[in-house]
Order: sequence, then structure tokens, then C-alpha cells
Amino acid sequence: MAHKTDIEIAREAQKRPIQEIGAKLGIPNEHLLPYGHDKAKIGQDFIESLSGQSDGKLILVTAINPTPAGEGKTTTTVGLGDGLNAIGKRAAICIREASLGPCFGMKGGAAGGGYAQVVPMEEMNLHFTGDFHAITSAHNLLAAMIDNHIYWGNALEIDQRRIVWRRVLDMNDRALRDTVTSLGGVANGFPRQTGFDITVASEVMAILCLATDLADLEKRLGDIIVAYRRDKTPVYARDIKADGAMTVLLKDAMQPNLVQTLENNPAFVHGGPFANIAHGCNSVIATKTALKLADYVVTEAGFGADLGAEKFMNIKCRKAGIAPSAVVLVATVRALKMNGGVAKGDLGTENVDAVTKGCENLGRHISNVKSFGVPVVVAINHFVTDTDAEVAAIKAFAESRGTEAFLCKHWADGSAGVTDLATRVAELADSGVANFAPLYNDEKPLFEKIETIAKRIYRADEVLADAKIRNQLKEWEAAGYGHLPVCMAKTQYSFTTDPTRRGAPEGHSVPVREVRLSAGAGFVVVICGEIMTMPGLPRVPSAEAIKLNADGDIEGLF
Amino acid sequence: MAHKTDIEIAREAQKRPIQEIGAKLGIPNEHLLPYGHDKAKIGQDFIESLSGQSDGKLILVTAINPTPAGEGKTTTTVGLGDGLNAIGKRAAICIREASLGPCFGMKGGAAGGGYAQVVPMEEMNLHFTGDFHAITSAHNLLAAMIDNHIYWGNALEIDQRRIVWRRVLDMNDRALRDTVTSLGGVANGFPRQTGFDITVASEVMAILCLATDLADLEKRLGDIIVAYRRDKTPVYARDIKADGAMTVLLKDAMQPNLVQTLENNPAFVHGGPFANIAHGCNSVIATKTALKLADYVVTEAGFGADLGAEKFMNIKCRKAGIAPSAVVLVATVRALKMNGGVAKGDLGTENVDAVTKGCENLGRHISNVKSFGVPVVVAINHFVTDTDAEVAAIKAFAESRGTEAFLCKHWADGSAGVTDLATRVAELADSGVANFAPLYNDEKPLFEKIETIAKRIYRADEVLADAKIRNQLKEWEAAGYGHLPVCMAKTQYSFTTDPTRRGAPEGHSVPVREVRLSAGAGFVVVICGEIMTMPGLPRVPSAEAIKLNADGDIEGLF
Repeated sequence: MAHKTDIEIAREAQKRPIQEIGAKLGIPNEHLLPYGHDKAKIGQDFIESLSGQSDGKLILVTAINPTPAGEGKTTTTVGLGDGLNAIGKRAAICIREASLGPCFGMKGGAAGGGYAQVVPMEEMNLHFTGDFHAITSAHNLLAAMIDNHIYWGNALEIDQRRIVWRRVLDMNDRALRDTVTSLGGVANGFPRQTGFDITVASEVMAILCLATDLADLEKRLGDIIVAYRRDKTPVYARDIKADGAMTVLLKDAMQPNLVQTLENNPAFVHGGPFANIAHGCNSVIATKTALKLADYVVTEAGFGADLGAEKFMNIKCRKAGIAPSAVVLVATVRALKMNGGVAKGDLGTENVDAVTKGCENLGRHISNVKSFGVPVVVAINHFVTDTDAEVAAIKAFAESRGTEAFLCKHWADGSAGVTDLATRVAELADSGVANFAPLYNDEKPLFEKIETIAKRIYRADEVLADAKIRNQLKEWEAAGYGHLPVCMAKTQYSFTTDPTRRGAPEGHSVPVREVRLSAGAGFVVVICGEIMTMPGLPRVPSAEAIKLNADGDIEGLF
Repeated sequence: MAHKTDIEIAREAQKRPIQEIGAKLGIPNEHLLPYGHDKAKIGQDFIESLSGQSDGKLILVTAINPTPAGEGKTTTTVGLGDGLNAIGKRAAICIREASLGPCFGMKGGAAGGGYAQVVPMEEMNLHFTGDFHAITSAHNLLAAMIDNHIYWGNALEIDQRRIVWRRVLDMNDRALRDTVTSLGGVANGFPRQTGFDITVASEVMAILCLATDLADLEKRLGDIIVAYRRDKTPVYARDIKADGAMTVLLKDAMQPNLVQTLENNPAFVHGGPFANIAHGCNSVIATKTALKLADYVVTEAGFGADLGAEKFMNIKCRKAGIAPSAVVLVATVRALKMNGGVAKGDLGTENVDAVTKGCENLGRHISNVKSFGVPVVVAINHFVTDTDAEVAAIKAFAESRGTEAFLCKHWADGSAGVTDLATRVAELADSGVANFAPLYNDEKPLFEKIETIAKRIYRADEVLADAKIRNQLKEWEAAGYGHLPVCMAKTQYSFTTDPTRRGAPEGHSVPVREVRLSAGAGFVVVICGEIMTMPGLPRVPSAEAIKLNADGDIEGLF
């Protein structure tokens, strides 16, 4: 079994018609808008009709700091969802959509792996239901309308040097990072320097994922700051009169997508904001809809818990008025070994000491998650080279920190490999021990919010920011944006801003390089280090090997 | 009835589930891939299974030269399709998909009008089934791979000054017409001047619309010339190894879309290449599939018959191995009056003389269409201000040219208003009088092909082209492209290259400004005049008024 590739397993899936999956959640056919026979969107009217119903329990899957060894966060999310269904619970999972661009660079991002996958895998890695294309269109319509406004007289007195709205494409294309547009003379407008980001980095993506309904979506789109005047006053998307048309373009994209796991359990796959300059979680509307329809909803957040879980708690849960009942921290023996100082080439050798040393990283995350008032358990995502002694070391460590670790074999065995974890997670979620609170109040000044995260989550001593940045934050506070949460853009590989510092460092400094206001999404982005918002293709892009074979199957995507 | 707007009528449509529409054509549910409840794609396997079946009759709807008065070509296509069904024939229509970009500029292009429409109208004018987004992705992947190839060492020795593959967006955005990319230093590549076209102008669009199946699609994509070396030898998309991944991106887009008319008859809506730098017809695969499934297939071609019908015959029919059994030439009293010299403001006043004078334009098109060996009738698309005397003048004129004109009231009355035309068209199609032949043979030299069209269709005395252009054509002939048809890019408003010369001018000259090789699509584009491939937005874009209203309906799109 273990020798089959993910795509081979996915192709052997006994998929059920999507209407059957919808029926498991009580969604009538007329409210399920099919895209082919195995994907559907859930109608807006039906979602609105659910508002009076009570919510299921929300379970967050997060992880230790990622390493090249891989942790399997999505795989565990899928496995745990199947596991809960297998023990007789009505559960659904909520994950993010994949970005198209990177699929043509490195090997494509599958939705889970082994026997814990979501299908249809190929389509989820290609156009899926078109949500990202709609975001690209809405984003670029706003960009075109800004330049068009200036072209026709610039009544809003936009300072062309201070246009902050770039364009986007769902493509890895380094040539578009930095461009000059409107060359060619009078008929093409005023030349200016600008560029393109990848679609997942669009503020429209973050907005779609935080909006509670279409009216909220339109309001947030209108709130986007697109430029400043010479006097530094902001110009909003609303001033450009783009918010209505953007909402129309996003009308279908706002409806959550329903697909299924290999075990035919419901999976919501909707939205996919960057986890650095945005909050890295699937859409609020998908999560809230799932909570109305299932008793347990398993979801995940991007990167490690220092970034992903922190943003999930402080941004998504705060804004959506939801709260997790339990958190699962995913670790692997291999990744803990790397955190314990072992090089990638030596991961196949038993090394209990390194595992124990690497558990420092796990321990830090356990304690961080608990600080949000939520119970946490550890999932050890099993790999064939793991030894009993290594696994025992993690279990012992977890116990020493007042929690439990479960060996999970969902990758090889599907739900049968994860019933222990599922049983315990359901107990924890039902126990009512969770007493969730975000880490800071809305009222705290912006810089103190940054300090709170840096000190309490990253365990840094100080936040370094020059006067320009501190003044900028104060200006935003004066302009009425002081109540916003902060969205940290930091390396995912370390608690520090140095990606090579694994384990559980403390006493370091967090230098803030830049701050950006995402007024529509509703957060202040705090950039600590180099952040790439338009990837490039590698020397040999995977696109070169992607093709249809004689059977009509896609080769090279995975 | 006549006071309802198109969108009001469309919203009152009693749509049937798309499976029922498919069933009318004998398409089993499992081969119909639904997109919501009212749109579907027809599966590739099913299409392949039809190859042994006989073809129905193909009927082309074309028109006189367009004027600001409007002719109603799509409306007549839809009306005639419904009319054929109303008289007991099994008929389907085939039309193009709408481009998203222009919908946010001027008022959106509906699919027909009045009681002769295709629905769902809003979705067809927005993302529809995502085909154009897929084309945008495929096109831009190739662009990214070209710059990436150069970035990593340029093993193919591409001359960066001679990259002819631009990027595309489905957006009216003049700022992107002329750009410099790869600024910002070493990591972003080599700066160069390039730009964006609108997606419908992409050669990928033309290829998708001419390809007969996925294998042919991949071959054509590989044949695209993306750049030249210093020695002028071409570099193909195949050399960049982009053809396989582009095919994968276009796999779903290659499947024709099925929707319905207001009278619940099947409508294929698939592909939409520019009618100037490309051939302006819906996809070959949609037309050929429709011919296998229906006894009569009514389709249309872009612009007036001098461009649209000419390209339909000389490019689409030649390449697809299909032939029309009858042609319908659409005219309106108002448009003929404008061709007869009346200003737009005076169209409401009866003016039989002007109608008769304008009939010169109609007469020229009648004779041109007949020169392809296909019988032609005239459809007078009725407007409320038309007088009996004006209509009689057109009928008399048609008779004097050996054909018939039918007054058609499908806009107001649906199929009931067009049964006379439908009856006659079915008779003509069944009569076997059509003896189709393209205007020129593959073997004719490229310049003589241009001359043939200019002299026999435009009735020009001469084609003017400087030595550079003539030499370029000879070079392409030497390189093996001499067998290709030519694709004329000329104003649609006149037989000449001067858009203000209405009626039926003759003895003029046709200056060729530029020639371009679309090696993947398989034609040589001949540019006669200013051709805009990236539109801009107007002073007040319609996007400013587009929004969702309180009922969730889209306002301002039509």
C-alpha cells in the first residue's frame, strides 16, 4: 500500500456523487451548485437560512515549525476528519484552496497525502471552481479603474507616486515583480513604476476569506486603500467606485466549495490567503457554514503554530466570533530530529536524543497554544523509518508538558490509523474545558500588539522598529485603525526572524522592516524580514514535465 | 412585452435543468459536466464516441456591415434556432462566449435580446465556465516560461529584442498595452519592453477554437512561435516545453459549453476569438459536436459578412472540413438607412429611398456569399419604427438579386416571429443546392490570397504593401507556411479600410500595414489599419454602476 503515490491513490478513489456528500450534511440538491460530478458550491441562500442553528465544535490542526522533512498538517487534518467520522461523529474538514502558479514551479501541492487525501486532486490543483481567477479579475479591475481614473482627469487628485494597489496573476513570474506601465504615449496613460504579486497575496483574497457575507464583502472591498494624495490622505476603492463590480465578480467565489475525502466525508475547500502578509486560513464563510452543518469541524492554519495558530486565534477567530474547542499540534519524528540539529540526510537513523532535543520546539508551541485558553494534544504523523523509542520519547515529552501525544497512521491506513486521536479530540472538544481568548485586546496600541506577539509567542526580548515605522503606526491609530489586529510576516522556519535558528530560541530581537495597512481585510501587516509576494520559476519548472498522457490523465503535476 | 429590458426577460426565463437540455440532444447525464444547474460542459469521451455519426446541416448567420443602429446577428441566430425547433426540426445553435473585460467598459454584451436570448445571461457575461480564465493562464504560463528560460541561461539563444509572445488579461486596461518588465535587479531577470493584450486576442484563444481535439490542441500550442534568435530562426512553444502544461490547463476549456435559449432549446456557447486579428467564430469542436447531435445547427460569425463570413468560409470551414448548407444575411431597416446616408438621429423617420440606397451594401454581401457556392436569404430583424413601405423595399431588392427577404419578429415574439424564415432555411439546407468551396486554394501564394479577398470580397482594385511586407510573406512561404489561409484585420464598418465609407464602394486600395504569423492557429494575419488588441475603459466605465442589489441581483451589467 505504502508504495503507491498520492496521485495513484487519488485516482483509485471511489468517489461518490457530490450530491451524496452534500446530503450527509443535510444540503438539499437545489442548494448545491455542482461543478462537474465531484465538486459543488453551497448556495448563498442556503447558508443564510442556517443562521439560527447552533454551531458544532471547531478543532484547529497546527504544527511545529516546518522543516524540509515535512510535517503533514493537511494530511493530519484530513485523517482526523475521517477518524472522527469513523468513530461515529458527524465531522467535516475545512482547508485552503491551492494556488495554481506554484504548481508549475515545484511539484504541485496535493490536498493531503497517502490515504488521507481530498479529491478530485488534479482539479483542486488547477482551476478548481474558479475562485482564484475571480479574485484575479476583481483585483485587476480595481487596478485598471485606478489608472483609468487618472487618465480621464484624476478628479480624486491621486498622487501617482503613491498608488499602493499593484496587479496580480496566479502565476510564478519574476519578470512581473517590478514593471513600468503606461508607456507608448498619451493614449496609454501616465507611465509609472508598479508590479504584480501572485493572486494569493492579494488583499482581495484576504478579504474574501474574512468576509461574513456579500454585504460585508462589498464593504471591505470599498475600504481598501488604493493610493494616497499629495497630502497623504487615502483614496479608497469606494472612491474609485470599484467595490460594486468587484463584489459582482466575486459573487460565486464567495460560496464555499464542497468536495470529499477518500473516505467520502465532506471537505470544505475555500480560499487560500498567503500565510505571511495575510492570515493563512480558509474562508470564514466556509468554517462558519461547516460549523452549522457538522458536529465537529477540523481545520488548519498555515505554517507553524507561531504564525498559523497565532493568526487563526488573533485574526480569524476574533473577527469571525468563533473559537476552537481543541487544538492538535502535528509533529513528526523526522522534523523533531531536524529541530534537534540533525541534517536532512541523516534522518533515517534512530536518534532519540535528537528527537528529545527537538521537542523543545514542540514544547514551546504547546505552551503558546495553551496561552489562548485552548486544550492541546500532539499528533505524531507516522513515517515508516520512525522507531518505537523515538515515538516513546515524544509521548513522554508531551506527558511532561501536561498533554498527550498520539501516534497517527492515517497516511498509511486512513481513518483506521487515527481513531485514538479522534476519540481524544472529540472528548476534549466536548468537555468544555476550552476558554478561548485572543492574546490581546482591540484597544491595545498597535506597537504593543506587535510586542505582545513577539514576547509571548516568539519569546523575544524586544521589537526593533525605527521612528518612521512607529510614527506610521501612530498615524494609523489617529486615522481610526488602531483597533485592528496585527498580521506578522516572519519566516515560518523559526521563532526568530532567522530561518536557520530551529528549536526554541529566546531572548532574541524582532526587527520590523515595514508595516502595511490592509484596511479592507482589517489588519496591519508587520513585515519582519524578506517577504516574497511574486515567486519565480526554478531552473527546470515542473511545467516542463506536465502533460496529458495517452489515457487522458495528467502527468507531472505531482 | 416590448417594454421589458433584455435582463428582465432573461430573469423571467423558465429555465429547465441542463440535463433536460442535454437529453434533447441525446447526451447522457454522466457525460454532461454541470456547472450549476443551468450550464454544463460536454465530456471529451462522449464527443469522441460520436465520430461515426452523420452530420446535420450547418446554417451560417452573418450580416451587412455593422452600424451604430445595430443589426441583431446573435438575436437572429437564437431566434432562428428556436424557430427551427418550433417547426419541428431538431436544431441547436452555436455562438461565441463573451469577453469579461469589455463588460466593465461599455454596457455588457448580452447573448441575443428580447425574446431571442440565451440564458443564464449574467453568468455568460461574467466568468461562465472559466474557459477564458484558463486561456489567460495557459497564455501567461508560456510567457513566464520564456522569461524564465532566459533567466536561467537562455540555452535556446532567444534574442530578447525579438520575443513576440506578450501577456494577456481579460480586462480593458490601457496601462498594460506597453510596459517594461523585469526591473529591480538581477533576481528579476533582464528588463525588456513588452505588453499585454486582452485574452480574446490571444493566439491560444484562436487555437482552442480551431483545434479538433486535445492532441491537435497540444500540437498547435507547440507550433506557436514565441521568439526569434539573432539569426531570425523561430523559437517555438515546444522548444520552451510549455505545450504539455498549457494543454493540461486547457483540458476542461476544450469541452464545449451547453446552455439553453429562453425557449429551452440547446445552445452551444464556446470560444470567442477576436474577429480582426483572429477568425471570430465559436470553436470548431462545439460546431462539430452540435452537427453530430442536431439536424440543423445555426451559427454566426463576427462583424459583417465581408470579414465574418469570409473567415468562416476560408478559415474555419476549410480547416474543420465543414461546409454551410445555407447562409442568412441579417439586416435592419435602420442599419440600411444608415448605409443609405441617414444620420443616427433621423432613423425614426420613414425613408424608403435611403433604405433602397442602403440596400447596395446588402446586395454586395448577397453576391459575395453566393460566390462561396452557398444559397443565401435575408432576415429583416424587425424594429418597432419600421414601416411597411421600408420593409417592402428590402423584400423587393432581395428579389431583384435572386433571393428572398423575410420579416422576422423573434425579438418581440420569439420563435413565433421567425417561422417563415425557419421554414425556408430548412428547405434550402435540405435542398442540397449548396456547393461550398473556399475562395482560394491552399497553394496560392500568400500575397495572392490577400489580393483575392481584397478584389473579390472588398471589390478593391489593388492591395498596397511595401517590399518589407512582401518579402516577409515570401520568407514564410519558404519556411513552409505558404499553405496557410490569411486572416484579414480590417475595419468592420466598411468594405474599404476607411470606416466612414458605407454602402458598396469599389475601386479602392487596401493598404497592408503589417503581417503576423499565427503559426499555432494556422493563419497569417494581415493588418490593414489601426487594430487595438487591448481596449481601454471609457471616462465613466459601466463598472461604476455594476453592483448587487438588495435582492442579490446584478445591476448595471446590461
